[in-house]
Amino acid sequence: MPSIRKELPRGFRWAAVKAGIKASGRTDVAVAVADRAASAAVMFTKNQVVAAPVTVGRRNMAATQGRVRALVVNAGNANCATGPQGIQVAEQTCGRAGEIFDCPADQVFPSSTGIIGVPLPVEKLTAALPNAQSRLANNQAAAEDFATAIMTTDTKMKVSQASLEDAESSVRIFGCCKGAGMIGPQLGPPHATMLVYLFTDLHIEPADLRALLEPAVEASFNSISVDGDTSTNDTVLILASGASGVRWDSVQRSFQDEFCNELQRVCNELAHAVIDDGEGVTHVVTLDVSGLPDDTAAKIIAKSIAHSPLCKTAWSSADPNWGRILCAAGYAGVPFAAENVTITIGGVRVFDHGMRDAGYDEAAVHEKMQQREYTIAIDFGSGPGRSKFLTCDLTVEYVHINADYST
Amino acid sequence: MPSIRKELPRGFRWAAVKAGIKASGRTDVAVAVADRAASAAVMFTKNQVVAAPVTVGRRNMAATQGRVRALVVNAGNANCATGPQGIQVAEQTCGRAGEIFDCPADQVFPSSTGIIGVPLPVEKLTAALPNAQSRLANNQAAAEDFATAIMTTDTKMKVSQASLEDAESSVRIFGCCKGAGMIGPQLGPPHATMLVYLFTDLHIEPADLRALLEPAVEASFNSISVDGDTSTNDTVLILASGASGVRWDSVQRSFQDEFCNELQRVCNELAHAVIDDGEGVTHVVTLDVSGLPDDTAAKIIAKSIAHSPLCKTAWSSADPNWGRILCAAGYAGVPFAAENVTITIGGVRVFDHGMRDAGYDEAAVHEKMQQREYTIAIDFGSGPGRSKFLTCDLTVEYVHINADYST
Repeated sequence: MPSIRKELPRGFRWAAVKAGIKASGRTDVAVAVADRAASAAVMFTKNQVVAAPVTVGRRNMAATQGRVRALVVNAGNANCATGPQGIQVAEQTCGRAGEIFDCPADQVFPSSTGIIGVPLPVEKLTAALPNAQSRLANNQAAAEDFATAIMTTDTKMKVSQASLEDAESSVRIFGCCKGAGMIGPQLGPPHATMLVYLFTDLHIEPADLRALLEPAVEASFNSISVDGDTSTNDTVLILASGASGVRWDSVQRSFQDEFCNELQRVCNELAHAVIDDGEGVTHVVTLDVSGLPDDTAAKIIAKSIAHSPLCKTAWSSADPNWGRILCAAGYAGVPFAAENVTITIGGVRVFDHGMRDAGYDEAAVHEKMQQREYTIAIDFGSGPGRSKFLTCDLTVEYVHINADYST
Repeated sequence: MPSIRKELPRGFRWAAVKAGIKASGRTDVAVAVADRAASAAVMFTKNQVVAAPVTVGRRNMAATQGRVRALVVNAGNANCATGPQGIQVAEQTCGRAGEIFDCPADQVFPSSTGIIGVPLPVEKLTAALPNAQSRLANNQAAAEDFATAIMTTDTKMKVSQASLEDAESSVRIFGCCKGAGMIGPQLGPPHATMLVYLFTDLHIEPADLRALLEPAVEASFNSISVDGDTSTNDTVLILASGASGVRWDSVQRSFQDEFCNELQRVCNELAHAVIDDGEGVTHVVTLDVSGLPDDTAAKIIAKSIAHSPLCKTAWSSADPNWGRILCAAGYAGVPFAAENVTITIGGVRVFDHGMRDAGYDEAAVHEKMQQREYTIAIDFGSGPGRSKFLTCDLTVEYVHINADYST
């Protein structure tokens, strides 16, 4: 993704340092600090097993009613399945960060990503914080340092920006994320190893911010999958510094709509970047499932197809084996009649109301599927339910990456 | 699997011929004929999309109230997603087989396995039936010819036999099956591309036979998964010729129990053979999930682990990444507390009540996981619910096999 050179939201500073947590020796601690306590809204993983920073982050958000001054992220270790000690480690991180960034410990939001079940070396993390503080800056280089330090198996930094202007005011958004494997987010009413951080200088209360975040996440991060593995650490956090001076409850409706559109675009760009950089990915596939009784049914079918190893391996070789798509739809648990189903791949109809399309040309479809990105549209009839779901192929490279992770 | 040289059930004859449906040119039509109409019970796939032979087989079973004289199976083409013509093709097969095997068309049970969405060349199939009839025989060679002809991506023939004897009587069971990919059976109250055929010479009514089949299938074929792809054609059919003269409703309870045990053993052996021959499989893993409120909850978690690409790829390299197992359990949708969870791999405890086991020795676990077969036990607490689920790793070879299927 090209880094968009727009102005950054005011009221935040970013930095990244090397704490020695990543085996690679790269930057692995990222810090964002708001000049004043920012309004915050968060969605965490719905996994039953959550990492210690998720537990502590949730608790802090409740205690402060959605106010965050400092965000401290480490990559290389998920601090998950680490028992009571893991909680202590997250608390120690908040405590030390509070001292350094001059705020109450509960205004610190901790995040971790990386291997599960290995104790996080908290001393390395906290020892790196003073260095991080000395580097804090509100400029593109610092923001991108932040976005780079949170990466694990990602091959590319993932950022997206937006800027809304009218005659007298401007509001800015900066978003970044990480995630390439263990991607099947199900982010809930308060979602994790996809980490998404959104920053804006809009002035808005936490409850209003939350109301903006949920639909934007549902249509983006909750509608993507690399491997269907919903992580224990997935987190989407949005912080609003208020430093633009633009108050959400005072601006015109048209400005509000524009802000929502831009927030959605930033989320969509980041979600697309996650799939595009998915582990071993060679094809990005949009599943456009329509004609079901409701959106939920459409999403259940989209996920069943997106998680089918047989569909995903066929996509890896541009194999027009649409029978596998129909089969994966069929075992999703949603009732439908095959004779109402029509499938197009890259705009070419392959299956028409229960039968192979009369003009089916395998070579033509194969050619369409050789593109890096294309859409598979599956229509089930006349219902209003629809889901647009972004996924990818399953390749030999994915197996290599994940068979060599920790040993 | 070693072929067990036991006597075959009386009252059946088997044959296999080459009809030119498989591109390989191997035997691809398998026929079994009962001397008199046999009692029959069947479980089909729960996929919403079912192959034409499933539709016709279900209809025939209803019409005859569970009586089957001839079973006609073709491999190489699933006759699925083939529209009204596919139904006609299955009906034509039954009609022609009825003429040749001298029975009503609805006493013919059709089965197909292979590629989806390509018209089945019915003329090739029916033209091969006279040759099949001339080869019918009640001997091991013929039964194994049958078991070989139904294979698609299978690398091994899968058969299992049992024989029960007491002073005055004997009852025999012969079972065979095919299936290596698209294996995630969910066989319902009337299940497909796993095909299982069980033959016995017990004298038993169809309703009683059905009552024996369901629990045997639930603990075997419904508790295995290669890739989680529930096929459109999965079928488990049992036929009872009665030719032993042993009547189910007259034998002692102990004989009934022994029959059930042997039927279960045959089903278990065949189910194991499917996983052992799964596409690209290098490790066979038994998931022993316990301590949940009920068996259903245990099976939901077992399936979530069995279908996790991250777990499966870790197993392929004997990687003791138990964090992925815990994570996959966590997103299954079943509530539990991580602090109650204990995980052992190959008998070695790795996770103990919410934390890495104090004596965790990664090298020792890695060694256990280098065995071709081992058990991963995940205990969630004190509940009575349990599931033993058989699955396998995800390898580079699986991707190669399925990325090269039809193109």
